[in-house]
Amino acid sequence: MIKVGIIGSTGYAGAEIVRLISSHKNAKVEWYGSRSYIDKKYYEVFQNMFQIVDDKCLDDNIDELANKVDVIFTATPQGLCSKIINEEVLKKVKVIDLSADFRIKDVDTYEKWYGIEHMSKEYIDEAVYGLCEINRDKVKNARLIANPGCFPTCSILSIYPLLKENFIDKDSIIIDAKSGTSGAGRGAKVNNLFCEVNENIKAYGVATHRHTPEIEEQLGYAAGGEVMINFTPHLVPMNRGILVTAYAKLNKNVSYDEVKAVYDKYYDKEKFVRVLDKDVNPETRWVEGSNYCDVNFKIDERTNRIIMMGAIDNLIKGAAGQAVQNMNIMFGEDEWEGIDQIPMFP
Amino acid sequence: MIKVGIIGSTGYAGAEIVRLISSHKNAKVEWYGSRSYIDKKYYEVFQNMFQIVDDKCLDDNIDELANKVDVIFTATPQGLCSKIINEEVLKKVKVIDLSADFRIKDVDTYEKWYGIEHMSKEYIDEAVYGLCEINRDKVKNARLIANPGCFPTCSILSIYPLLKENFIDKDSIIIDAKSGTSGAGRGAKVNNLFCEVNENIKAYGVATHRHTPEIEEQLGYAAGGEVMINFTPHLVPMNRGILVTAYAKLNKNVSYDEVKAVYDKYYDKEKFVRVLDKDVNPETRWVEGSNYCDVNFKIDERTNRIIMMGAIDNLIKGAAGQAVQNMNIMFGEDEWEGIDQIPMFP
Amino acid sequence: MIKVGIIGSTGYAGAEIVRLISSHKNAKVEWYGSRSYIDKKYYEVFQNMFQIVDDKCLDDNIDELANKVDVIFTATPQGLCSKIINEEVLKKVKVIDLSADFRIKDVDTYEKWYGIEHMSKEYIDEAVYGLCEINRDKVKNARLIANPGCFPTCSILSIYPLLKENFIDKDSIIIDAKSGTSGAGRGAKVNNLFCEVNENIKAYGVATHRHTPEIEEQLGYAAGGEVMINFTPHLVPMNRGILVTAYAKLNKNVSYDEVKAVYDKYYDKEKFVRVLDKDVNPETRWVEGSNYCDVNFKIDERTNRIIMMGAIDNLIKGAAGQAVQNMNIMFGEDEWEGIDQIPMFP
Amino acid sequence: MIKVGIIGSTGYAGAEIVRLISSHKNAKVEWYGSRSYIDKKYYEVFQNMFQIVDDKCLDDNIDELANKVDVIFTATPQGLCSKIINEEVLKKVKVIDLSADFRIKDVDTYEKWYGIEHMSKEYIDEAVYGLCEINRDKVKNARLIANPGCFPTCSILSIYPLLKENFIDKDSIIIDAKSGTSGAGRGAKVNNLFCEVNENIKAYGVATHRHTPEIEEQLGYAAGGEVMINFTPHLVPMNRGILVTAYAKLNKNVSYDEVKAVYDKYYDKEKFVRVLDKDVNPETRWVEGSNYCDVNFKIDERTNRIIMMGAIDNLIKGAAGQAVQNMNIMFGEDEWEGIDQIPMFP
Repeated sequence: MIKVGIIGSTGYAGAEIVRLISSHKNAKVEWYGSRSYIDKKYYEVFQNMFQIVDDKCLDDNIDELANKVDVIFTATPQGLCSKIINEEVLKKVKVIDLSADFRIKDVDTYEKWYGIEHMSKEYIDEAVYGLCEINRDKVKNARLIANPGCFPTCSILSIYPLLKENFIDKDSIIIDAKSGTSGAGRGAKVNNLFCEVNENIKAYGVATHRHTPEIEEQLGYAAGGEVMINFTPHLVPMNRGILVTAYAKLNKNVSYDEVKAVYDKYYDKEKFVRVLDKDVNPETRWVEGSNYCDVNFKIDERTNRIIMMGAIDNLIKGAAGQAVQNMNIMFGEDEWEGIDQIPMFP
Repeated sequence: MIKVGIIGSTGYAGAEIVRLISSHKNAKVEWYGSRSYIDKKYYEVFQNMFQIVDDKCLDDNIDELANKVDVIFTATPQGLCSKIINEEVLKKVKVIDLSADFRIKDVDTYEKWYGIEHMSKEYIDEAVYGLCEINRDKVKNARLIANPGCFPTCSILSIYPLLKENFIDKDSIIIDAKSGTSGAGRGAKVNNLFCEVNENIKAYGVATHRHTPEIEEQLGYAAGGEVMINFTPHLVPMNRGILVTAYAKLNKNVSYDEVKAVYDKYYDKEKFVRVLDKDVNPETRWVEGSNYCDVNFKIDERTNRIIMMGAIDNLIKGAAGQAVQNMNIMFGEDEWEGIDQIPMFP
Repeated sequence: MIKVGIIGSTGYAGAEIVRLISSHKNAKVEWYGSRSYIDKKYYEVFQNMFQIVDDKCLDDNIDELANKVDVIFTATPQGLCSKIINEEVLKKVKVIDLSADFRIKDVDTYEKWYGIEHMSKEYIDEAVYGLCEINRDKVKNARLIANPGCFPTCSILSIYPLLKENFIDKDSIIIDAKSGTSGAGRGAKVNNLFCEVNENIKAYGVATHRHTPEIEEQLGYAAGGEVMINFTPHLVPMNRGILVTAYAKLNKNVSYDEVKAVYDKYYDKEKFVRVLDKDVNPETRWVEGSNYCDVNFKIDERTNRIIMMGAIDNLIKGAAGQAVQNMNIMFGEDEWEGIDQIPMFP
Repeated sequence: MIKVGIIGSTGYAGAEIVRLISSHKNAKVEWYGSRSYIDKKYYEVFQNMFQIVDDKCLDDNIDELANKVDVIFTATPQGLCSKIINEEVLKKVKVIDLSADFRIKDVDTYEKWYGIEHMSKEYIDEAVYGLCEINRDKVKNARLIANPGCFPTCSILSIYPLLKENFIDKDSIIIDAKSGTSGAGRGAKVNNLFCEVNENIKAYGVATHRHTPEIEEQLGYAAGGEVMINFTPHLVPMNRGILVTAYAKLNKNVSYDEVKAVYDKYYDKEKFVRVLDKDVNPETRWVEGSNYCDVNFKIDERTNRIIMMGAIDNLIKGAAGQAVQNMNIMFGEDEWEGIDQIPMFP
């Protein structure tokens, strides 16, 4: 039985880890960390867990935690994980960080986009970017996982094969993304009130969103050289889901079948990435509640561009689900254990 | 392995049976019935099932079906199940009917409220009203289950204990219910279009809704005499969920603890009915995606009335989940097999 | 030109006053009060007002304000208006208070339900309860208007005629109400975040909601004696709208036509109260964006009860619109000036 | 008083024309055309119009209509207007066609993208593309207006100034658009049911949407040469609103101020186009219920691209409002008469 500790268990992503681990055969949450709700019953914060979880929320205490559990998930704001981990901790437990602290290899880029100083530069190199379908082998033996961001997960999985196979021009990539509101977190902000979000759509972080360098770095590995993209996220009046619509110039004349073959080459054996049938567009409703990433593409011969699309549940494949997937890989579990829920519709 | 046939597998309730059975250890769907989509791949209708279900939709053929499966779920409009079942069928398979055909013992009442002639009156007596927590023993040996309606399930579970224990005046019951839109089905009707439902709330079927006599009959058994209620359903702009707010006169001065003890007496050992802590109101978000029914109450000493509240996911405890729960009881499975999903929030 | 001052102009109700006054021929906002946004351009808080309002938000200064304007709207939390008004102010300007401070004549009842001490008891008697259709004559000459609450407006208009004409039993009234989320205000609270409200319905303030004594007092005037009700509000995932479903015992056998005649007697000449055709239920979408209150009823002969229903836009007839309606009456304007917008659908 | 006839008055756009004309000082609807609801009271279809419109719906009869009214709005599917107009009609009345029949000058392009034969080719040249801010002078004397599509209106207003002034590369334009569901019309289709749209976002018509050639033609006039774009619309779970996020390569190094000056040059005197302050992104909630188009831009120096954004209410500036604006111009009315409603929020 894998003993699990969660720092930040009362945010949306943290709560989703709790829910997923609760249906995992070989894992159990031993530490419900939550600075905001110390000593409060966990189910009093999330009544869906009434009669399911009886534990109380605990303060953060990384040393005590390291002695009690096998793996720590940090579902916390940027800067926290890098502040609290150290060699003592990493010797004892695996750490899966859902924040951005260890996602970007170039520390200057991190500090510029996030506006904070990195407190554990020495672990940046070691940390493995936990996009399971791309980095599975490295994940296996990692001590520290940088769990990918929600937008990067969906963007990279949608674009990676075509960039890797040199089908598209790496300097032409534009990613227009749409996210449900749970991605904005559970903090009490006017901008996220029901009446502010409902009956509205807006772009935010235009040309400045922090997921930009993360996507660029990973796409850079695929392209074998620096990639610069436009990335524009939008806030959609729904709870869950991310949809990515990405545009790029084709490097050559290609047929539907040729492109399909490339996607299949990378994803045919992947349980959690589904390449849809021709002309079926990914929709967030078809992946909600699951760890799936649905992808597809459309060639526009008129403009010689290709439109690449992907859909995920931002809290599962975009956060908690992928974190558990990484845990499964690290601990030799079936990769889909605890995260094989079928998408729930409607 | 229990072989399952579904007639009406492409409605919302039918699709939910498919989803739940797909995660059931000892059951498997063998027949995806759907008159509207014959020969179409099931996943083409519900893309969430892509790469999960590869079968095609089949026409209704009760005789062939009876030979192939162990249990038939009819998730169809009123009148169909009563038209197609017969002794040959019932000798071979169990039938769990999600329509109203066998819920009401008095055939005149049925025909009056539903406006159709009943085609299998001879099975009305035999049919067991499958509200598992109340009728578990009868369900065990039934051949034919009348799976309760969504509003009746939530209403009866909320009111039953107090009526049975004579705490409330049986002539004073008013049920004000609120339902998500999946309860209206997947038919293409202007009234159920997004723009007609969104940003709106309305009552419908005021004083005439067909679930009224169903609730009255079941409450009548608890009260030991005829019960007449007011029942008003409302349509809420959300996908899933039913909330019941019921009002009744108290027969005597009672304390919180006395009432709580009555609820506990009936539900303490029931996994799927959760009596909430004092002053915590049921909310549909805390049961969405699960088979739970959350109930609670509030005494109003000023008016000597009690407000009884209940919340369910209308597609699960209010339809498909309870149907599978009935199947589990009938086939000697763990009652919660396939339906022990934790509520998904947000 | 009526000069208008608003204290609390950046809440939802305050902003709605701004919007309505902006289309009023003979009124103009001279003071955009907002403690939270002092010196900020009003349109920076509400971008819909970009290029329409160029003023800055001002601090509260009742004395200065009283010298500058003809009427002050206080769209503020309970307790503020009663703290700042005095004879000096009332000699100079009319005051329309959208809070509950002057709605309840019995100060003990106010202090008990609201949990605060009343700071201007001397004006409670003088204040006129501004439910225009009922108290129009008193409004005309008032200095101080207690603008009715959103739930009370809809509840009273739905029930008043039948109670006044003694058609219903005053001790049997149960009001089950449903409100959009703008009624909860613009404060940054976790409970009002999009993801907490969306896909959910819940009751709140069960048997304890502060609008209860306000409704009871007004219904008491109609009944000619003390009235005690059950009142249960629910939060609906939509921006605007209140729906009231009220239940009462009929005092005698009455026909549809007799009841209809009573409603018509009271509302036939009222522009803003529409008695709908037979069997057409009020729905919030049909009044959204307008000052209308739609009402109707259904007799249930089986239970000898009547179901009375009403729908309003909570921010207009339930707050800002009625406040402007009161202003129009007080200043001799056409009653519908500035508030005759047609409901916007969808 | 301008006498107005509407063919298709019970669709969402047609109903919005009714609503707007009802608050127009010098216009009045004389003919509520609706094949689906002949002889039914208009308010029975749209209860918001109860006690406001008492007329019945009438069949289409273009000859009778032409004798009775001064202007005909056709808010109908493609192909109808071009089938019914002729010289007799155009001699008698102005026609404002909200369908696509006369928007595209090249009839082959029309027939290819729309898949229908054009029945009035002889009027294509004469028809004026009624994007008021661009073609105001031509509108003044037109007999036949091709009222722009919702996506084209928002797209063109967002991009036009920079293309006209040669700031952007005409071959690099990508338009990613998002629309509320009223844009899909009031037809009873499964895809537009509440439960199918709610909690979902999807792209549709990828690389094939019919608004593509319309946008290309108009942008072509600005660019002074053929323009080919990528255009991807998305369906958003909200009633109203269109947001356009458009990307293009900058032709040269430009500053914020230089770009701002270009937008101001075109829109400074336009009431209905608002160029927002720096770094304020257009959001649909700030224009909902109004005829405004909010636009803004963001320069991304890293990629040398510019992101152009626009927001409209699809039923008003994107359909009915612009149609009335065209009417006002044609009949010498104040351009904003009947359509100067302030955006309603929330």
